[in-house]
Amino acid sequence: MSDTLTDLPAIAALRARLADLPGPALLAAGAIGAGHGHDETGNLECLPALVLRPSCTEEVSRMLAACHDLDLKVVVQGGRTGLSNGATPRAGEVALSLDRMTRLDPVDPVSGSIVAEAGVSLQRVQEAAEAAGLSFGVDIGARGTATVGGICATNAGGLNVIRHGMTRAHVISLEVVLADGRVMGHTRSLAKDNSGPDLKQLFIGSEGILGVITRVCLALRPAPGPAATFFGSAPGIAAARALLARLRRDAPAALLAFEIIDRPLFDRITTAGHVSPIAPGAVQVLVELEEGADPDHLGAVLMEAIEAGELEDATLAASGSQRAALWALREACAEAVFSLTAPVGFDIGLPTAAMEAFLHDARTGLEAALPGIGIYVFGHLGDGNLHYIVDTDQPDTVAQIVFGALAAHGGAISAEHGLGREKAKYLPLVRNAAELDVLRGLKQLLDPRGILNPGRVLP
Amino acid sequence: MSDTLTDLPAIAALRARLADLPGPALLAAGAIGAGHGHDETGNLECLPALVLRPSCTEEVSRMLAACHDLDLKVVVQGGRTGLSNGATPRAGEVALSLDRMTRLDPVDPVSGSIVAEAGVSLQRVQEAAEAAGLSFGVDIGARGTATVGGICATNAGGLNVIRHGMTRAHVISLEVVLADGRVMGHTRSLAKDNSGPDLKQLFIGSEGILGVITRVCLALRPAPGPAATFFGSAPGIAAARALLARLRRDAPAALLAFEIIDRPLFDRITTAGHVSPIAPGAVQVLVELEEGADPDHLGAVLMEAIEAGELEDATLAASGSQRAALWALREACAEAVFSLTAPVGFDIGLPTAAMEAFLHDARTGLEAALPGIGIYVFGHLGDGNLHYIVDTDQPDTVAQIVFGALAAHGGAISAEHGLGREKAKYLPLVRNAAELDVLRGLKQLLDPRGILNPGRVLP
Ligand SMILES: Cc1cc2nc3c(=O)[nH]c(=O)nc-3n(C[C@H](O)[C@H](O)[C@H](O)COP(=O)(O)OP(=O)(O)OC[C@H]3O[C@@H](n4cnc5c(N)ncnc54)[C@H](O)[C@@H]3O)c2cc1C
Ligand SMILES: Cc1cc2nc3c(=O)[nH]c(=O)nc-3n(C[C@H](O)[C@H](O)[C@H](O)COP(=O)(O)OP(=O)(O)OC[C@H]3O[C@@H](n4cnc5c(N)ncnc54)[C@H](O)[C@@H]3O)c2cc1C
Repeated sequence: MSDTLTDLPAIAALRARLADLPGPALLAAGAIGAGHGHDETGNLECLPALVLRPSCTEEVSRMLAACHDLDLKVVVQGGRTGLSNGATPRAGEVALSLDRMTRLDPVDPVSGSIVAEAGVSLQRVQEAAEAAGLSFGVDIGARGTATVGGICATNAGGLNVIRHGMTRAHVISLEVVLADGRVMGHTRSLAKDNSGPDLKQLFIGSEGILGVITRVCLALRPAPGPAATFFGSAPGIAAARALLARLRRDAPAALLAFEIIDRPLFDRITTAGHVSPIAPGAVQVLVELEEGADPDHLGAVLMEAIEAGELEDATLAASGSQRAALWALREACAEAVFSLTAPVGFDIGLPTAAMEAFLHDARTGLEAALPGIGIYVFGHLGDGNLHYIVDTDQPDTVAQIVFGALAAHGGAISAEHGLGREKAKYLPLVRNAAELDVLRGLKQLLDPRGILNPGRVLP
Repeated sequence: MSDTLTDLPAIAALRARLADLPGPALLAAGAIGAGHGHDETGNLECLPALVLRPSCTEEVSRMLAACHDLDLKVVVQGGRTGLSNGATPRAGEVALSLDRMTRLDPVDPVSGSIVAEAGVSLQRVQEAAEAAGLSFGVDIGARGTATVGGICATNAGGLNVIRHGMTRAHVISLEVVLADGRVMGHTRSLAKDNSGPDLKQLFIGSEGILGVITRVCLALRPAPGPAATFFGSAPGIAAARALLARLRRDAPAALLAFEIIDRPLFDRITTAGHVSPIAPGAVQVLVELEEGADPDHLGAVLMEAIEAGELEDATLAASGSQRAALWALREACAEAVFSLTAPVGFDIGLPTAAMEAFLHDARTGLEAALPGIGIYVFGHLGDGNLHYIVDTDQPDTVAQIVFGALAAHGGAISAEHGLGREKAKYLPLVRNAAELDVLRGLKQLLDPRGILNPGRVLP
C-alpha cells in the first residue's frame, strides 16, 4: 500500500504532468470534500491524496497513463452509492472521479438505445428513455446518485431482475480506459457482434479493478404498461418456492418481481405502524406480473395455489394506490432493518433448489454459536437473492458461519453489491484455484502494476 | 502448424495415455467418418489425426491435459453446423468431439432452468422446456444438430434476438475445461452472482479458442402465446427504419422479429413460384409482435405508418396458416440465394444509424470494381444484422470492399456466425491495437501453448 508521505513527490509529479488541464480537473488537499472519502457503506478513513476529475475520455487516458508511469494507486469513484466499500479510498490513493463526465446523447429511437458518459446518473437515463416513450430496464433505490459507470462496474441488479436481467443485459457496448491509458471499445449501437470474444463483458461487474468505464451505449425497452400486483402469505419458504414454480408455468403474464419478507421482519414492520392487508404467515410474498395479465385467469391460479397450500391468504391490488401500499410494505424492510441494534447484512445468492437447506444450516450454525441471535430475511426470492440480516455484535463470527453455509450450498457471497474491500477476502470460499489463477492473470494482463482499485475484489 | 507425419509419435503417446478409456472414447484413422472432416461451410481437406470422444467432464480434462503435455493441436467439434469453418480440422489436428456428452437433466421449474451437457442438441432443450410448459429463447434453423456447447461457443443468434437476445442472454452458468485440463465454473442455477468478474462470459462467443465448454445451465422462459404477424412493403431502407422506430414506440406489444427482404431477392423468390401477398416495394418487411397485441391498435399504427410513407402496402396474418405462409417467404431467402451462380455471403452487423450509408458505400464500391455485379440483401434489420450476398467469382476483391465499407461505418464483420478460420484475418479491421493485444493476452493466459483451435478467430 502506498504511503501518503513517501508519495508526495509522485503526487507533485502527477500535478505537473496535468498542469495544463483547467482548474476543475484536479482537486488538491483542502479542496476535497468529505464525500470523496467514502461510499455508502464506508466510513471516512482518509481523504484521497488528490481528486482527478476528467471531462472526457482523452483526459481519463492522460490521467491514468500518468498514474501508471508514476506508480500511483487510483480509486475509481462514480456516485459513491456502492454498498461494499469499493469506492472508499485507502491511504495514499488518488481518486479518479467521473463526476464531470455527464454528457447524455439523445435517445436513438430506431435502435432503441442511448449513449451516456460514465458520470450520468441512472435517473437521467430513465427520464430520457421515458421522454422518448421507452424505458430503461434497471432500477435501484439509489437511482438519483448512482452513475451509469457505477451500475456497469458493479453489474447492479435491483427491482425487476427476474424479468429484465441485471445491468449486463442492458449494455450494448462500452468504452474503457485501461490502467496504462490505452482506450478500448466503442459506444455504437451495434446490437450483434460476434467478431471474436466480447471484451466488454470483462469490465461489467469487475468493480473498476480491470479498467475505467468512460462511456456506455445502453439498450432501452418499450415503456411498460400497468402491472398486476398481489401480496400474500405462505406457510414457509418451500411453499413460496412452489408458488414461484406455479406462477412461472401458469401465470397469465411474465413475472416482474417475486419478493419475500419473513415473519420476524414483517412483525417489526407492522409493529412500527404499517397495516398488513392479509393474515400474516411464516413468509410474506409480493408478486408482480407484467401488463396484460387477465385478472380472472390470475384469480384462478391464486385459488389453485391456496388449495395446494402454497398460499394461506392473498390480496390483489385493485388500483394504483393499492399497489403502492403493497410496495410500501416491501420498502419498509430497510427501515425495519435499521431499527435493529446492530444489523449485519449479507447480500447472498443461492441456487433456488438450495434455498431451504442453506437457511436451515445457517440458522442452526448461528443459534449454536450465538444462542438467541436475531435473524431476519427478505429479498428477491425469484432471483435466488436474499438479504440475510443478523442482529449481532460479533460480525466476524457471523460472517464465517453464513459464508461457510453459503459456500457449502453453492451460493454467491455477493448476488448484487459486489465484493469491494469488504468481501474480497471471502472470494476463495466460492472460486476454485483455477478460477483465482485466471482472475489474477486477468488483473496482471490489464493492470500489470496493480494501480486500479488495489485491495478490492481480489484477495 | 502440426504435420501429420512428424506428429505420429505424439499421437501414439496420446493413445497410450488414454488406453484405459473404453472403445468409443477414441476413434483412430480408418474409423473416422467424413463428417469429422468439416463443418457446414468447410470442405473436407483432411480428417483429424484422431477423434477424442469423452463421455464426461473428467475425461475431457484428462484428454486435454494429455494433448497439452504432448503439444498436440486440438479442434473442438460440436454439431459441426457452424458457418465459419471453425470446427473443420487442419492437418495434424486431433478432434475433440462432444458427441457422447448428451446428458440432459430434468427442467428445474422453480428457477426456470435446465442443465445440459455440451453435446445435447438445441432441439432437445427446446422440447424439454416445452414439455414443462416453458420455452427456450434461442432458435436457429440448425436446431436438430447444433449443440448446446456449440451455440454457447458461438453465441448463436437466430430468430427473436430482437426480443430475447443472443445465446449469451440465456446462459446462467457454465463449466469449462481449460487447455491444460483444469476445470472451471459450475452449472448451478445461480441467477445472480456478483462475486468478482464473471469469467463464464469469456467463453461465450469465443469459438473454442479459450476453453472447452462441457456443461451448461440455461435459463428458460414462459411459453409464448400466439404472436401477431404482418408482411408489408416499404419504399426503401430509410422507410423501413422509420417503421421500426415507430413500432418500438407505438406498437401494442414488444417486437419479436423485424426481418427484411430487398427487391432483387424478393423478385427471385416470386419468380421461383412463391406468391406475394402484397404489391412488392423496394424492401419487404416481415414483423412479428408478442402475444397480446390488440389488433385494432396494431391496425391503427399500421395506418399511421402508411400515411407517413413508411409502408406502401401491408397484410396482417389472420390465422396460423397465414402466418406460416408469410414466414415461408422469409425462409425462401436461403433457396433463392443458393440458386445464384456463385453466392458469397456476409453476416454483417451495423449500428442501425449507419445502415443506409454502409449499403450505399458498399454498392458504389462493388459496382465500380465489378460492373453489373448482383447484390442481394435480407436479414434481421431489427438487430442491425443483414445477410449481404454478392453473386461473384471474385470473393477476395468483394470481401475487401464489403469489409472496408463495414469497418468505416463501425460495423461487425460477423454479427452471428463467428470468425472461425474464414474471417480471422479480417479481425484487425474492427479491433484496435489495444484490443488485439488484450485478445492475444487472454489466449496466452488460458491456452499458453496454443493447442485449442489454432488459426481460428485470432489473426
Ligand atoms: C439506497 C440504495 C439502494 C441500492 N439498491 C441497489 C440494488 O437494488 N441493487 C444493486 O445491485 N445495488 C444497489 N445499491 C448499490 C449501488 O447503488 C450500486 O452498486 C451502484 O451501481 C453503484 O453506483 P455508483 O455510481 O454509486 O458507484 P460507486 O459507489 O462510486 O462505485 C462502485 C464500484 O464501482 C467502481 N466504479 C464506479 N464507477 C466506475 C467506472 N466508471 N469505471 C470503473 N469502475 C467504476 C468503484 O471503484 C467501486 O468499486 C444501492 C445503494 C443504495 C445507497
Ligand atoms: C441451417 C443452419 C441455420 C443456421 N442458423 C443460424 C442462425 O440463425 N444464427 C446463428 O447464429 N447461427 C446459425 N447457424 C450456424 C450454427 O448453427 C451455429 O453457429 C451453431 O451455434 C453451431 O453449433 P454446433 O454445435 O454445430 O457447433 P460446431 O459447428 O461444431 O462448432 C462451432 C464452433 O464452436 C466451437 N465449439 C463447438 N462446441 C464447443 C464446445 N463444447 N466448447 C468449445 N468450443 C466449441 C467449434 O470449435 C467451432 O469453432 C446456422 C447453421 C445452419 C447449418
